[in-house]
Amino acid sequence: MRPRLFTPGPTPVPESIQLAMAQPMIHHRNEDFQAYLTVCHDKLKLLFQTSSPVVILSGSGTSGMESLVSSVMPDGEEAVFVNGGKFGERWGELLAHYQVPHVEITKTWGVPVTADEIIAVIKTNPKITTVFLTHSETSTGTFTDIKSVTAGVKSAFPHIKVIVDGITSVGSHELRMDEWGIDAVVTGSQKGLMIPPGLALVAVQQSMIEKIKTLKSKSFYLSLQDALKSQEANDTPWTPAVSLIIGLKYALELIEKEGMEAVWKRHSRLGESVRRGVTALGLRLFSTSPSNAVTPVYLPEGVDWKSFNGNLKKKDGITIAGGQGPYTGKIFRISHLGYYDDFDMITVMAGIERSLKSCKYPFTTGAGVAATHQYLMETLG
Amino acid sequence: MRPRLFTPGPTPVPESIQLAMAQPMIHHRNEDFQAYLTVCHDKLKLLFQTSSPVVILSGSGTSGMESLVSSVMPDGEEAVFVNGGKFGERWGELLAHYQVPHVEITKTWGVPVTADEIIAVIKTNPKITTVFLTHSETSTGTFTDIKSVTAGVKSAFPHIKVIVDGITSVGSHELRMDEWGIDAVVTGSQKGLMIPPGLALVAVQQSMIEKIKTLKSKSFYLSLQDALKSQEANDTPWTPAVSLIIGLKYALELIEKEGMEAVWKRHSRLGESVRRGVTALGLRLFSTSPSNAVTPVYLPEGVDWKSFNGNLKKKDGITIAGGQGPYTGKIFRISHLGYYDDFDMITVMAGIERSLKSCKYPFTTGAGVAATHQYLMETLG
Repeated sequence: MRPRLFTPGPTPVPESIQLAMAQPMIHHRNEDFQAYLTVCHDKLKLLFQTSSPVVILSGSGTSGMESLVSSVMPDGEEAVFVNGGKFGERWGELLAHYQVPHVEITKTWGVPVTADEIIAVIKTNPKITTVFLTHSETSTGTFTDIKSVTAGVKSAFPHIKVIVDGITSVGSHELRMDEWGIDAVVTGSQKGLMIPPGLALVAVQQSMIEKIKTLKSKSFYLSLQDALKSQEANDTPWTPAVSLIIGLKYALELIEKEGMEAVWKRHSRLGESVRRGVTALGLRLFSTSPSNAVTPVYLPEGVDWKSFNGNLKKKDGITIAGGQGPYTGKIFRISHLGYYDDFDMITVMAGIERSLKSCKYPFTTGAGVAATHQYLMETLG
Repeated sequence: MRPRLFTPGPTPVPESIQLAMAQPMIHHRNEDFQAYLTVCHDKLKLLFQTSSPVVILSGSGTSGMESLVSSVMPDGEEAVFVNGGKFGERWGELLAHYQVPHVEITKTWGVPVTADEIIAVIKTNPKITTVFLTHSETSTGTFTDIKSVTAGVKSAFPHIKVIVDGITSVGSHELRMDEWGIDAVVTGSQKGLMIPPGLALVAVQQSMIEKIKTLKSKSFYLSLQDALKSQEANDTPWTPAVSLIIGLKYALELIEKEGMEAVWKRHSRLGESVRRGVTALGLRLFSTSPSNAVTPVYLPEGVDWKSFNGNLKKKDGITIAGGQGPYTGKIFRISHLGYYDDFDMITVMAGIERSLKSCKYPFTTGAGVAATHQYLMETLG
């Protein structure tokens, strides 16, 4: 079989974008490149549903998270973050790194946080100014209802700022930054944006920009103050990843052409189709609040991760993701984030069935594929 | 005319590498990708002429510089840096950002530092542990004799560490990190390595690694401690810029095939051919110690940068670089760093002549091309 990638980042890159990025190199302080930047800055607003600037950093998603922690937390302010998986945990690592006093809300993996839990923490910690959340926790495939959490927190404490890791949610879940009053959102290029890794995109509301302008960032390369200042001149503070920004332009055009709501709906359908497929095989879903980016599934009793994954990869060319941290070897994760359509879901379910069969897991051949296929047919637009 | 790029980063990307980077995306925690990493880590040692590890960071050259300043300077240690242009100045900005006490040696742009100047500073500042240098200062096209400076400084003060910005020298100038006793060198992907911007490569000697292991980096994303630890497991701490690392592998193979010394010699010949060409046109070179990466030239009296550059770019498709900082509008810079050969130099000289003619600068048509061509023919290997 030919290679197929079903991992929640990097995600497959559309062929047209691969080739667009292969065009001859151009200089970054040049009107040709500035034309790309202009389109990107403009269309990124659609992606985040904001009228505020979205900064393009050349680095991974983590670099985007660091840009926020290092640029928006002055001495004297405290934070609360939610640790419900490997990426929520990263907010905590960053806050600790920059010695920002913080409270951790620890959630069982697979269970999302509620507004009330955050409100309770802020009540007893009046120095907290900022909440760090994860919209779609990639390690657990768990969706947090950012809309209602933000509304709840801001209704109780209007001064609180809400910062969201949207690394695997941007493009896969409805996200309306302005309407929902979110102060900052970060994503990465190799996720819903369907281009290779190497860019972080950081959307910051006007209220946040005022704060950033008064604070010297604790990072040099990742200073949002510097990035915003350069952006006003349609420039970047440092040499940007030119080829990836060219790819970004074409990716944003694809998304615009499909339509933001259509992209969200596609991810919702694909996610549900996979959940139905694996459930029909008698497998158990990991998350109580499933993300539309990635579906984690418990490995059934007697099925060894290494054999299961080895079959998939070696025999059938399908790369999925394993469990992380405490769930290594206990769950597997199927991604449906980015450049996927109905038939990709049928393909991955067929692959899952073939590997389960090799692992001698008992099920009716075709049950998973049928459930996925049927749901997708029932919900054709 | 078709577009041609003669800027000192980004530099042209070989067509074979553009297409190699356009291959289907692979996952970074996967043996396919690890095979790329293994080759890169191995062949980067050839590039830096070292047996020590070379770390790959996903970011610009500046991110690589920051990784060093934030990872190797503990409280209590002081530094000296040389400011002879925009990129030397950046070491100073980084040292100031991280509040590392430091002495600045200011050089006239275009004039390199000597060992004696550095030794004099260290003598009167005994807390200095580290010297930050620039091998090829891109803004001034000036080469510093890192070999003799390092030898001089280390002979006077064996404990001093020497850290080199090799961003435009790696690949264009002889650099023998181990033999010359240099402790760390940083470069960027979009320079002598001929791939798009987005990677920084940081070579660190064993002595430096011991130091890094005992220090928590002040940066999170750019921690060399974390990068070195991941590298031991053939991994990266954060999602790397996969497509660029694939390109890096092919670029390093091209360099290995040509041979490191042949690459240095090619740059030396190309640089000299351009210097002879512009001199034959009656133009004046900017630097007293010319870099083999880029040649800055004074604009002659009466020739306006905007017209000169506009002709080159609009009529002839040739992109060169202008002056930076105080030399904006006063000099122009022709790059010969990376994927260039003899005929590219003849082409750029022909373009320069055409634009000078349009600007009504008086010279004998063909004098520049002839001088470049003649030197290249005389020095055919």
